[in-house]
Amino acid sequence: MKILCDLEPGKVSAQMLRDSVAPYDIIDRQESNRDLDLTGVEIAFGQPEIAIIERCEQLRWVHLTSAGYTRYDTAEFRAMAARRGVLLTNSSSVYAAPCAEHVFAFMMAQTRRLPEGLRSRAASGTDEWSRLRQNSGSLFGQQIVILGFGAIAAHLIKLLAPFEMKIVGMRRSRQGNEGVAIITPSELHAALATADHVVNILPDNAASRNFVDASCFAAMKRGAVFYNIGRGTTVVQQALLEALRSGRLEAAWLDVTDPEPLPPGHPLLGVANCFITPHTAGGHRNEPESLARHFLENFRRFRDGLPLQDRVM
Amino acid sequence: MKILCDLEPGKVSAQMLRDSVAPYDIIDRQESNRDLDLTGVEIAFGQPEIAIIERCEQLRWVHLTSAGYTRYDTAEFRAMAARRGVLLTNSSSVYAAPCAEHVFAFMMAQTRRLPEGLRSRAASGTDEWSRLRQNSGSLFGQQIVILGFGAIAAHLIKLLAPFEMKIVGMRRSRQGNEGVAIITPSELHAALATADHVVNILPDNAASRNFVDASCFAAMKRGAVFYNIGRGTTVVQQALLEALRSGRLEAAWLDVTDPEPLPPGHPLLGVANCFITPHTAGGHRNEPESLARHFLENFRRFRDGLPLQDRVM
Repeated sequence: MKILCDLEPGKVSAQMLRDSVAPYDIIDRQESNRDLDLTGVEIAFGQPEIAIIERCEQLRWVHLTSAGYTRYDTAEFRAMAARRGVLLTNSSSVYAAPCAEHVFAFMMAQTRRLPEGLRSRAASGTDEWSRLRQNSGSLFGQQIVILGFGAIAAHLIKLLAPFEMKIVGMRRSRQGNEGVAIITPSELHAALATADHVVNILPDNAASRNFVDASCFAAMKRGAVFYNIGRGTTVVQQALLEALRSGRLEAAWLDVTDPEPLPPGHPLLGVANCFITPHTAGGHRNEPESLARHFLENFRRFRDGLPLQDRVM
Repeated sequence: MKILCDLEPGKVSAQMLRDSVAPYDIIDRQESNRDLDLTGVEIAFGQPEIAIIERCEQLRWVHLTSAGYTRYDTAEFRAMAARRGVLLTNSSSVYAAPCAEHVFAFMMAQTRRLPEGLRSRAASGTDEWSRLRQNSGSLFGQQIVILGFGAIAAHLIKLLAPFEMKIVGMRRSRQGNEGVAIITPSELHAALATADHVVNILPDNAASRNFVDASCFAAMKRGAVFYNIGRGTTVVQQALLEALRSGRLEAAWLDVTDPEPLPPGHPLLGVANCFITPHTAGGHRNEPESLARHFLENFRRFRDGLPLQDRVM
């Protein structure tokens, strides 16, 4: 019984897993350039290439060290996984808390006008000072629409609880356990009309690509704020740019763009009220440890025949 | 029966109060430069000068449009108020929510490294990117010490609830209803030793002036973050500067300084990781309306002989 570890450098160390998975053997692809003997590989952990997955004939489970799984999210891969009975899990619950806190930090910074306030040295009583104070708001009672309702959204709504906001989540199909009002994509435009905050957490796939387009921005109320911590490819950036320039959007806060980073001179870099962090929303102090812990919890479940966490196929 | 309105321009309009307080008459100091007839003035609302208060012989209640009341907080004024049976209330509950959200925005921005992230355009996998991701943290389970436990602190701990932080509040005397561990000033240094976040909400008075001094910063754990939304005069700024320069503090976030704004060239303006907003924490979109609403609620209580909200004397 073997576990193929296909780990990015700086993420989980295969060595630290070895003792915890006995009697499974760890095969670390980073350590060897020789032809791998894939006989007996039941588990693949990391970011395994599809060509390698296809060669592991005894494979039963693939666990990804990312939340994103775009390259596996094809009809072809799904069919292969279904045919062979291979499970696919990701690490979305590892990234749910930091991603939720990141977008929440965006929301608070915008609400309290931190970018403007941190630049200002306005004296009390001046026009600049009065304007800054009047523009500083509160999240209390505001409306938010969340596009993509998974682990991050579930965590985010816990953080928002003290603000008693009106929360609407959009997902392809209601599951009934979301704890907030859920709409499907066809109901989105109506919901956008009254939202103060629109948070995009959509992953990248064929259905989500360019999902947030000019018609979405046109459906938003004037002065709404748009946030993206999903994937840059889910937004039509030209439409976002126009929504910022026209004043439809009060501001945009993006952790993801297309491409990343945006090239020098890209128009979004020159727009006031467009705030961009370089895809750091999922980062956290002990990322390798939490990825390993999450894998080992799923490994225990796998060994004991229990349902896996963060299963996506 | 008269209400003397001594209101700053741009704050509450006396006109909008007139109908709500009948049969009381409103005397608006902004409207007249003539000698005021203060006979029958039972209530003073706004920022009345002490000399005027002394001249109102029938005065029973002063309601301030600020949370701060430093100039009234003297032994002489307290004795006069006690002798004449004059109540003093402030507007602290109007400012509690925006101030709490402001310092909470500071905490989230620091935790997710927004100032650094918003400046960076690091590409995925670079050292700068990895460092930024690793330095981005979570408030979850962290420790916070709050100096000054009033309405702002009470609101702040509601906002922090989802993060399950270890919260310690410092106030002069425990009241037992704080809902978190309360320490007195003599116990502070021990509590600072393990705090990740130190939030100063102290008002300005003889006891609090220069309270946060070099010994406080020396008692903090290495890498703590210091926040001030109380008053600038409660911090020894030279000691803060040294704590930032030595690396004792990871960062400082200040909404208040001494003086405000800091003059060009002030050393705190040149320190990386010292983030300053220009006393905008209490600002919010409908400040005049909320100040008026708060006064009218207290007016109703006053008229009905009920205890007043936000009573400070």
